[in-house]
Amino acid sequence: MDSPVTLAGQSVRTLRRVVIEGVEPEIDGGAFPAKRVVGDRVTVKADIFADGHDKIGAALLYRRQEERSWNEARMRLIVNDRWAGQFDVDGLGRYVYTIVGWVDTFRTWAADLSKMAGSGQDVSVDLLIGADILQAVADRVSEADASKLGETASRLRKLSANDPAAAVKLVQSTELADMIDHNRDRSADSRYEKELTVVVDSPKARFSTWYEMFPRSCTNDPKRHGTFRDCIDRLEYISGMGFDVLYLPPIHPIGRTERKGKNNSLHPEPDDLGSPWAIGDEEGGHKAIHPQLGSLEDLKVLQQEARQFGIDIAIDLAYQTSPDHPYVREHREWFRERPDGTVQYAENPPKKYQDIYPFDFESDHAPELWDELKSIAVYWIEQGIRIFRVDNPHTKPFAFWEWLINDIKRDYPDVIFLSEAFTRPKVMYRLAKLGFTQSYTYFAWKNTSWELTQYFTEITQTSVREYFRANLWPNTPDILNAYLQHGGRPAFMARLILAATLGANYGIYGPAFELCESRPIREGSEEYLDSEKYQIRVWDTDNPNSLKDLITHVNAIRRGNPALQSDWSLKFHPVDNDRLIAYSKVAEGFSNMLLVVVNLDPHHTQSGWVNVATDAFHIGSEESYQVHDLLTDATYVWHGSRNFVQLNPSVVPAHLFSVRPIG
Amino acid sequence: MDSPVTLAGQSVRTLRRVVIEGVEPEIDGGAFPAKRVVGDRVTVKADIFADGHDKIGAALLYRRQEERSWNEARMRLIVNDRWAGQFDVDGLGRYVYTIVGWVDTFRTWAADLSKMAGSGQDVSVDLLIGADILQAVADRVSEADASKLGETASRLRKLSANDPAAAVKLVQSTELADMIDHNRDRSADSRYEKELTVVVDSPKARFSTWYEMFPRSCTNDPKRHGTFRDCIDRLEYISGMGFDVLYLPPIHPIGRTERKGKNNSLHPEPDDLGSPWAIGDEEGGHKAIHPQLGSLEDLKVLQQEARQFGIDIAIDLAYQTSPDHPYVREHREWFRERPDGTVQYAENPPKKYQDIYPFDFESDHAPELWDELKSIAVYWIEQGIRIFRVDNPHTKPFAFWEWLINDIKRDYPDVIFLSEAFTRPKVMYRLAKLGFTQSYTYFAWKNTSWELTQYFTEITQTSVREYFRANLWPNTPDILNAYLQHGGRPAFMARLILAATLGANYGIYGPAFELCESRPIREGSEEYLDSEKYQIRVWDTDNPNSLKDLITHVNAIRRGNPALQSDWSLKFHPVDNDRLIAYSKVAEGFSNMLLVVVNLDPHHTQSGWVNVATDAFHIGSEESYQVHDLLTDATYVWHGSRNFVQLNPSVVPAHLFSVRPIG
Repeated sequence: MDSPVTLAGQSVRTLRRVVIEGVEPEIDGGAFPAKRVVGDRVTVKADIFADGHDKIGAALLYRRQEERSWNEARMRLIVNDRWAGQFDVDGLGRYVYTIVGWVDTFRTWAADLSKMAGSGQDVSVDLLIGADILQAVADRVSEADASKLGETASRLRKLSANDPAAAVKLVQSTELADMIDHNRDRSADSRYEKELTVVVDSPKARFSTWYEMFPRSCTNDPKRHGTFRDCIDRLEYISGMGFDVLYLPPIHPIGRTERKGKNNSLHPEPDDLGSPWAIGDEEGGHKAIHPQLGSLEDLKVLQQEARQFGIDIAIDLAYQTSPDHPYVREHREWFRERPDGTVQYAENPPKKYQDIYPFDFESDHAPELWDELKSIAVYWIEQGIRIFRVDNPHTKPFAFWEWLINDIKRDYPDVIFLSEAFTRPKVMYRLAKLGFTQSYTYFAWKNTSWELTQYFTEITQTSVREYFRANLWPNTPDILNAYLQHGGRPAFMARLILAATLGANYGIYGPAFELCESRPIREGSEEYLDSEKYQIRVWDTDNPNSLKDLITHVNAIRRGNPALQSDWSLKFHPVDNDRLIAYSKVAEGFSNMLLVVVNLDPHHTQSGWVNVATDAFHIGSEESYQVHDLLTDATYVWHGSRNFVQLNPSVVPAHLFSVRPIG
Repeated sequence: MDSPVTLAGQSVRTLRRVVIEGVEPEIDGGAFPAKRVVGDRVTVKADIFADGHDKIGAALLYRRQEERSWNEARMRLIVNDRWAGQFDVDGLGRYVYTIVGWVDTFRTWAADLSKMAGSGQDVSVDLLIGADILQAVADRVSEADASKLGETASRLRKLSANDPAAAVKLVQSTELADMIDHNRDRSADSRYEKELTVVVDSPKARFSTWYEMFPRSCTNDPKRHGTFRDCIDRLEYISGMGFDVLYLPPIHPIGRTERKGKNNSLHPEPDDLGSPWAIGDEEGGHKAIHPQLGSLEDLKVLQQEARQFGIDIAIDLAYQTSPDHPYVREHREWFRERPDGTVQYAENPPKKYQDIYPFDFESDHAPELWDELKSIAVYWIEQGIRIFRVDNPHTKPFAFWEWLINDIKRDYPDVIFLSEAFTRPKVMYRLAKLGFTQSYTYFAWKNTSWELTQYFTEITQTSVREYFRANLWPNTPDILNAYLQHGGRPAFMARLILAATLGANYGIYGPAFELCESRPIREGSEEYLDSEKYQIRVWDTDNPNSLKDLITHVNAIRRGNPALQSDWSLKFHPVDNDRLIAYSKVAEGFSNMLLVVVNLDPHHTQSGWVNVATDAFHIGSEESYQVHDLLTDATYVWHGSRNFVQLNPSVVPAHLFSVRPIG
């Protein structure tokens, strides 16, 4: 036959007998990329098998998205038809991967020959079959390989059937099998029907330590508006505690119309400053800087100085306006109009936010609007910003974010977008899938052992981790959880240690956090009293009760222990007292292993027995090992799985053990 | 704008804000159909949500594959953005379904209005917004609806803002909201990107009771070959026990070359009959009938008589030949040739099966071969056969089966294919996905409580159940498990009850099973001594030790209790003695509920406390309920979750309780 006949959608000449399914990572059937950072090794797994008893081979094909040619990495059988392969991602941007599998006729024959030889059967015809297999490959390949293969084929033909052992020896070389693999007829490969993608971000996407601060509060006098220059003076303090991202709430002019007063009052004083999220006044909008903070030049100096400390400045992307924003005058068509001719303000009935106008993402003029919103992000990127905290992305269309983030990351693959969505889980996950680099979480509301275990198992030990990178915040300007309100300093210590060790990415809103600010606007509310959202606050960062030293210590431990720089190894260990929680993180190859035990009760000393799953540390369940508390420098010898702990929350509510095998 | 602008791949005018993901059932991204039987109600679930706070609507679209127009069934929110909808499948063949979702502007507005009205706000402008929404729909729809909608819009405009309650009352009717749904602009619907398929089989695909029997052993004299006529005389016996499928191993002429003798001997006696799976002699092959069994006419009479008893005759599809099969002469090109010019026989090195020739599914002549193999199945279908047990499908290409089964079921959608593959799990599942109606399982090797619980939870309580329909066999002519060899009559009783209650589909190989035949060919082997595969066996079906009465009783219980006619409700209940196993099955609406407790120890009486998960029966954990043992007719009153059982295996090793709430 000249042209192969087609049957069941396949050419019979190249019937693709190998099945490839259950590929991981693969998010929503390949609709979204998996996420990694530069330097990661990507492990791809799949179920790969064929009918019958033939041996098969499989390889991972991968390339940078912008390149054309594929690289090939052999996959290995793990167990139960599950195979794995790996490739390294050493550059920012997108990589593409897929899988091929093939029936390995040669290895099948060689293994059969070995079994037959072992049972003393006549293998004379089988030797000829092997020679034919080798010759068929030789006829197709480069001269050097062809000569080696042809020679082996000839020797097989000449071998005596009475000496099968010689034949087995002749064909058992890995080199020969690999040469045949390499020269296989690739047109007969089964190829997975999809090409999957991995987005490779900068290392800070996986491991970052954030500090949120209102620049206008960088002052010693509530009547004097802090500036970017003042922020520069605060850098040593922030860096000294070990933070590497400084996030500033919106730095733009603030609207006057319907401005909110102190404590969210509807009746502001004339000198009230308003909320930075009410963006825009007559002078400018999202590309302008609030004049009292300084100039664009000042911001650039702040960025340069921060960079000296290893700190990136992150700013807010809050796509909404005050009624005074130039857009409202110049592009009324970007807002929804009410039947009475006024602009539709934000509302969450029965609440009205008349100081905020949302954009209308669905109008006929959306294309211009979307382009303008993108130009805002690009503008700040061009001023040196590489990290955005994105305000309330769940209130704008998913398609907008998918377009915006992917379009920007094509040109600026190192940019990080943190999704500030606190909404239903499916919505939060969708935002992460469609492109957000990091995501806020429910951490602030997970205070019991059961809640923490369930939630962090879900986000770090299921496929969610392929796309959702958690960033843990014990507080934000909007969230002062009841646990912090009522738990005093021990509660702040416990939450700091939980955030910093459960999350490779975490942040605090300071100085409120380190100074243990715990007064809500009223009982039952999570809003701060005298919130910085509406006024300047002067903070005494030298207060001796500050958690500054603990934070400094914990962040240094994070930097020194690779186990804490990723969330994928997180494992919870049962404790017989549910006021205590225990979990471990382990670096690649067990080179660095941490076991954290936290007392969740801020009021009482708690003790209990930790049931250490010692296999997490590659330690036998009856072996002894050393645990060295990195917080107190105390060292203990533990044995096997059952070990006792007791923690006084007013001293330090946690053990942060480095685990080391003995001997 | 006349033509809508496109942004992010969507028209801005119809930005599709609703996301539809996580659809169930959906097998391998829609590559394979889910399975149901005629009369089933299909439940489809999905995560459906939009950005922001807008209310959304969703509907299931479904149709028979051959029809063009879609039916629409509203979906309802269950919890956490998970929605569900249902449709009934009342005909054989394929149905297609997908999902649409939309932002429900009207319900969003009505709910907001209600909240604002409740807080005493001025809603005058909001009434106008609502009127506009209604008018926009009215402008687009049929006269009758338009008039009703326009009228409501007018009344809204006229309502006083001071009487918001009147407005809320006006728009709260479900009828109005449904009319708006119905008349919505469908071009703005988000539509799930795939159309998914469900295959609807005949009811026996889900609930069937099989009896396997060698027709040549329907005789009283080992020297007299049983016939189809003899099988007719056996029908009353088989039907009396309650079986509704009678499966006959291959009924075709048997090859002489390399024929195996009794007990698989390589040195047969002249009068040895050979294995029925060595198909084909000079007289004929897969479309011929072994002359000693009778004629095609006799087979048809057997089928007719069987039908009187409610029994379907199932035959074997064993796609392989003896060396004497006409194909070997007439179509040598369908077989692989060895370098010495002989035909490649079956082998699993170091074992050789020289009495069996496999087909070469990959040769240039495969198209003719595949067509011929299909014609075999079609031939028997045209003779009235509707059920095939398919021999070793895992040794033929997956693509072949996918093509064969789907091609045949297009014309004969009631045909059932049982996959006789005992191989690795992924391969067994793949065969089920690509089309096999039922599948053999690992049941024969699952004998402990832990093994049974793990395995049956996997195949009945995960997505595996969408495509893999288990058929449970405690024995087959190839499988006499050690448990049966050593457990005596109590082991056979226990395995019968397990198969019949764990599996809505089950079968036994008789009369070996009911007569408790337990002698292996040698210690350590699962092969029967004097196996019927190689010789006639005469069975004393009147033996007083026969399990005939127990089987009759159990099969009657299966017919009378709908809970046992599906596997989807299977739930295991812990017992504090692992020699006992407890599980329940419950029919739709709790109308029929069974709790089975089996003593897995064939040698000793075992007792223990069953921890009944009473919620499985919709019974409170502190309530009393009646358990009526359908095997012994004894009735007990149980209370709450902890209840005592004791079972003597030599009497009857199980309780088969019907559970009834009291009062």
